[in-house]
Amino acid sequence: MKCVFVCVVVLAMLGVRVQAFSFNDLTDYVDKHQEEYVEALRDWVSIESDSSDITKRAELQRMMGVVEEKLRGMKGNVSMMDIGTETLEDGRVVALPSVVTAVFGDDENKHTVCVYGHVDVQPARREDGWTTDPYNLTEINGNLYGRGASDNKAPVLAWIHAVEAYTALNMELPVNVKFLIEGMEETGSNGLDVLVESQRDAFFFDVDYIVISDCGWQSTRPALTYGTRGNCYFYAQVEGPKQDLHSGVDGGAVIEPMSDLIGILNSLISASGQILIPGVADAVADFTEEEKKIYEKVDFDMETYRSSIGVERLMYDNKVDLLAHMWRFPTISIHGIEGAFCGFGTKTVIPAKVTAKFSIRQVPNMNPAVVEKQVTDHLHGVFQQRKSPNKLKVKMIIGVKPWLTDTKNALYEAGKRAVKKVFSVEPELIREGGTIPIARTFQDMTGKDIIMLPIGGFDDGLHSQNEKISRYNYMEGTKLFISFLHEVSHIKNN
Amino acid sequence: MKCVFVCVVVLAMLGVRVQAFSFNDLTDYVDKHQEEYVEALRDWVSIESDSSDITKRAELQRMMGVVEEKLRGMKGNVSMMDIGTETLEDGRVVALPSVVTAVFGDDENKHTVCVYGHVDVQPARREDGWTTDPYNLTEINGNLYGRGASDNKAPVLAWIHAVEAYTALNMELPVNVKFLIEGMEETGSNGLDVLVESQRDAFFFDVDYIVISDCGWQSTRPALTYGTRGNCYFYAQVEGPKQDLHSGVDGGAVIEPMSDLIGILNSLISASGQILIPGVADAVADFTEEEKKIYEKVDFDMETYRSSIGVERLMYDNKVDLLAHMWRFPTISIHGIEGAFCGFGTKTVIPAKVTAKFSIRQVPNMNPAVVEKQVTDHLHGVFQQRKSPNKLKVKMIIGVKPWLTDTKNALYEAGKRAVKKVFSVEPELIREGGTIPIARTFQDMTGKDIIMLPIGGFDDGLHSQNEKISRYNYMEGTKLFISFLHEVSHIKNN
Repeated sequence: MKCVFVCVVVLAMLGVRVQAFSFNDLTDYVDKHQEEYVEALRDWVSIESDSSDITKRAELQRMMGVVEEKLRGMKGNVSMMDIGTETLEDGRVVALPSVVTAVFGDDENKHTVCVYGHVDVQPARREDGWTTDPYNLTEINGNLYGRGASDNKAPVLAWIHAVEAYTALNMELPVNVKFLIEGMEETGSNGLDVLVESQRDAFFFDVDYIVISDCGWQSTRPALTYGTRGNCYFYAQVEGPKQDLHSGVDGGAVIEPMSDLIGILNSLISASGQILIPGVADAVADFTEEEKKIYEKVDFDMETYRSSIGVERLMYDNKVDLLAHMWRFPTISIHGIEGAFCGFGTKTVIPAKVTAKFSIRQVPNMNPAVVEKQVTDHLHGVFQQRKSPNKLKVKMIIGVKPWLTDTKNALYEAGKRAVKKVFSVEPELIREGGTIPIARTFQDMTGKDIIMLPIGGFDDGLHSQNEKISRYNYMEGTKLFISFLHEVSHIKNN
Repeated sequence: MKCVFVCVVVLAMLGVRVQAFSFNDLTDYVDKHQEEYVEALRDWVSIESDSSDITKRAELQRMMGVVEEKLRGMKGNVSMMDIGTETLEDGRVVALPSVVTAVFGDDENKHTVCVYGHVDVQPARREDGWTTDPYNLTEINGNLYGRGASDNKAPVLAWIHAVEAYTALNMELPVNVKFLIEGMEETGSNGLDVLVESQRDAFFFDVDYIVISDCGWQSTRPALTYGTRGNCYFYAQVEGPKQDLHSGVDGGAVIEPMSDLIGILNSLISASGQILIPGVADAVADFTEEEKKIYEKVDFDMETYRSSIGVERLMYDNKVDLLAHMWRFPTISIHGIEGAFCGFGTKTVIPAKVTAKFSIRQVPNMNPAVVEKQVTDHLHGVFQQRKSPNKLKVKMIIGVKPWLTDTKNALYEAGKRAVKKVFSVEPELIREGGTIPIARTFQDMTGKDIIMLPIGGFDDGLHSQNEKISRYNYMEGTKLFISFLHEVSHIKNN
């Protein structure tokens, strides 16, 4: 409070008028600055901040520095928080990228909103099938293509620009705003749990609400997200010969690790997509009639979705079952195999050590520790039946719980008002099949109310080729955040 | 004959004495020049002539040029033979690397030996687990490590040095020697069939014997090889969404191509390594008692082999069954999957289009055209049962027949004498599990006698990490070739 007061006095002495809140002025400001906002996104996308590739760690750290610099430039109280090290598969110990925090305002009479975001990205290579350079933001028909554009660089920038707009117009921020921006989200927010726990009584002490904009709408209609799935990511490694062999010279002499691996992978999932690991389905919360009714009301066009992802047929032929299996049932995906031949052309190799990567999305009331045991026991059991001379290792690399909240609290009501103000429609209430590891961590460790306020489009292609965010979603999203900060300031204390 | 006579006269006029054959002088010459020979191999290994990678095509063409230059320097009658183009998967049409031919001598009273070799290599990357740079020849304890060292660059150089030794010592070559060196062996000798057919009455017209040194011994004892397996290489591609999806956002909505692919791959092979494709085993020639007796006599230590490849247990517990399954039964190897995630780290992707690469080694009396239909029908049958909305394409990329010959003919007797002369032991008579596509082509198209005269060690790691040839095998191999040319000159015409 004191600081704000002093500032106001200083500004007044300098002849700078503190302007009263005007939503129109703020949205005008956004419209007038959209080219700058696109340029800022271009700069951020150009940094290959891929957290899953250790060779890109310097780029990732550079990305954190760019965020820090931007927030310092806005006169925030900025810190680079060290979150320790990680141990790689080969035993090397490397530093995790710093987490950037920034504080704008500390008025005790205002609510305090903590904005969480991340600026690391999934891998992307032109050879994967991108039609543009993934690290060179390219605008086509109002869409801004680039890796990380929607997940999560534009939303983080939109939050920064929202705060900046208030400051630039000399409007008082209606709430105190804190930023917590990390660089390890795509690999499971390694190191953040410890930070959140250690900061519970420091950085988080005066935080009232946590907002996360790391997801997307379900259709063209704006949405509020009230649940996410967790994720258990596994490595299953079969090791045989001490090095790769020649399929002609040695083929017939050894049980090949690849055939063992394919044999055990095939035991995970049925042809119709059901998880075959004993016990996994037992923990899943009952699918209630009430829930089905909520799903029936969701504005989701199956044909639009089917055609946007380009499959011939979806796994379920009705909206309720489909949404349920994307949002509230576990699924298993086999992502690929490390160590086998994966290049172009023909190589006649017997790979010596092959590691399958697969993951199981978690829903209430699954427990990653239990899933880890179920998967490990199951795979070892199937492998044992094969009587193979090779060795199997199963390891859970990531284990993140799901998150679910109540959409009738004051925070979601503020979110609904903000959406209404900017888009003139009620938001959809949706769940999200993806995982935002930190949501559950925030909930468990801080006990604060959390809201997910997405601005990404339903067809943004997160983690895929040709990821994009539309200029519309980026700019209107910035306005939504401006509006949301104002609406939160009207929440009455209990 | 005329040319040699003129040469002798000219050399005599120049005061250059034509020396009489002296095996000791020739082997002394080899011993004195071994550092030069190693340097030549270093130069050749440094060229990344990977025929399976289209981006390396210029390097491969450069390699062919180096071979041409070397043979021209030896005053051979050298040609670069154009073998046309290939059409890549993406529709591009590219030139195949030229085939180098060279002729040394055309004395009608001498036999003519055609030496076949290749200078293309399998892919190799340090990340695959090489402990040295695969393209920088590195000597450790008498072994020369590098991609292509044993397969097939050192053997080709040894043949060149064998001819060169005669010339350097002014000794008359005991036979006419022709070289045929190609650059597409590792991907199925694309384009060579057509060349051989077109040259049947030209380059091959006066050829009596064809010698191939593109294989290895079975133990530390020198060997002659009398059979090779063929190979049918397949791509099985499952295609679903139009691009990769996010396993969180979209997981549960689609039947994933990876699970379909793993399901059909698992139908190819049993846990104990048996091929499960109906019909494939039917064509295999009966395993006779006589054959078993030959295998019993082979100097092959199962424990040495087991420990050299580093597996806990071999597929068969007795020598005869093991050799039979490496040499004269078909085997199937799954090499890897293109299009799935194969890098380090964790990527939560649903790959949209995945292509498995696998191959089936061919033995008498299998027919690649029949195998192609059996595999295609089988996979489509299994896929159909899955009722998947995805699309399956099966394609045979390479289809090479096996080769088998008689070890009691005059050519093999010459080979036996040559081995005895250099190594003071009788050679082992072995088969080879790998494929040398051109052997069968030569046999079918030219009708000439063929011998396989290997100089590679049993533990050279062809197609694997840390491929090597020992200095011993390289140098003694050169002497073997010198001796062989001499012994062939003693074969009596029928």
